Amino acid sequence: MKVMGIDPGTRFVGFSVVEKQGNRLSCITSGVVRTNTKEPIPQRLRVIYREIAAVINEHEPQHVAVEKVFFGKNIQSAIKLGEGRGVVLLAAAQKDLDIFEYDATKVKKSIVGGGRAHKSQIQFMVKKILNIDKEMSDDEADALAIAVCHCQNYIAGILQ
Amino acid sequence: MKVMGIDPGTRFVGFSVVEKQGNRLSCITSGVVRTNTKEPIPQRLRVIYREIAAVINEHEPQHVAVEKVFFGKNIQSAIKLGEGRGVVLLAAAQKDLDIFEYDATKVKKSIVGGGRAHKSQIQFMVKKILNIDKEMSDDEADALAIAVCHCQNYIAGILQ
Repeated sequence: MKVMGIDPGTRFVGFSVVEKQGNRLSCITSGVVRTNTKEPIPQRLRVIYREIAAVINEHEPQHVAVEKVFFGKNIQSAIKLGEGRGVVLLAAAQKDLDIFEYDATKVKKSIVGGGRAHKSQIQFMVKKILNIDKEMSDDEADALAIAVCHCQNYIAGILQ
Repeated sequence: MKVMGIDPGTRFVGFSVVEKQGNRLSCITSGVVRTNTKEPIPQRLRVIYREIAAVINEHEPQHVAVEKVFFGKNIQSAIKLGEGRGVVLLAAAQKDLDIFEYDATKVKKSIVGGGRAHKSQIQFMVKKILNIDKEMSDDEADALAIAVCHCQNYIAGILQ
């Protein structure tokens, strides 16, 4: 079972594909879509959509896990965040993938056992769980964390 | 010159295509994409994207005018609004259309001469300007109003 994790932001979109085979989780791919903040928003949305759709086409995950968003700095940033989420959700819906949302606290609890973990702890544990050792940004680590969270919660539940 | 006006909402997306020939403005098409609120958001985004892309493909507008959003009831509704805007902007960007944003006050001023007009005044004047007489929702009237606003401002300016 392959799960895509996505951390949609206004500038960077973290993504990952994690595979669960029995009790073993492995990282198939992960990375960050970086948009050029000097470009207009519609062009940046086009890049995000294209890159996320390309990862879905290449790795064919069955599920997509995305972070639930409850807050934002202000209305303007919430709208921008929504724009990025919109094209990501569209790319997943167009391939009929099942989409799941987890709030940040749930993700942190799954990965480090507590809801108030620092970014560095998340990254440390994600690398340990998936047995990977590479430099990565917080966006990439968050995208891996949400995919792992989904594997440990939803999939673990239905496969047992 | 054809201008598409879009009023993206979370449930309904108003759209229009207005043509400017000399000083004459005419309505090529207008309507509302209605989404089923019982369906999950990603499915609804898929419907919005598909329908807006279909209108762009059929009528081939050169410009798209969308309302600038400054406020929202709360962060949650702003994110939802952003999701709808995101897929609409994507559909336009994928066809390399030029996208313009106008704030609501500017649109109202263009149509009725003042920034505090009621929805019913907007609709009355839009029908008068475009010489149309049909039943329409506020979303459809708003989509026509923003296209007319763009014709009267931007295009009027560059064609003179």
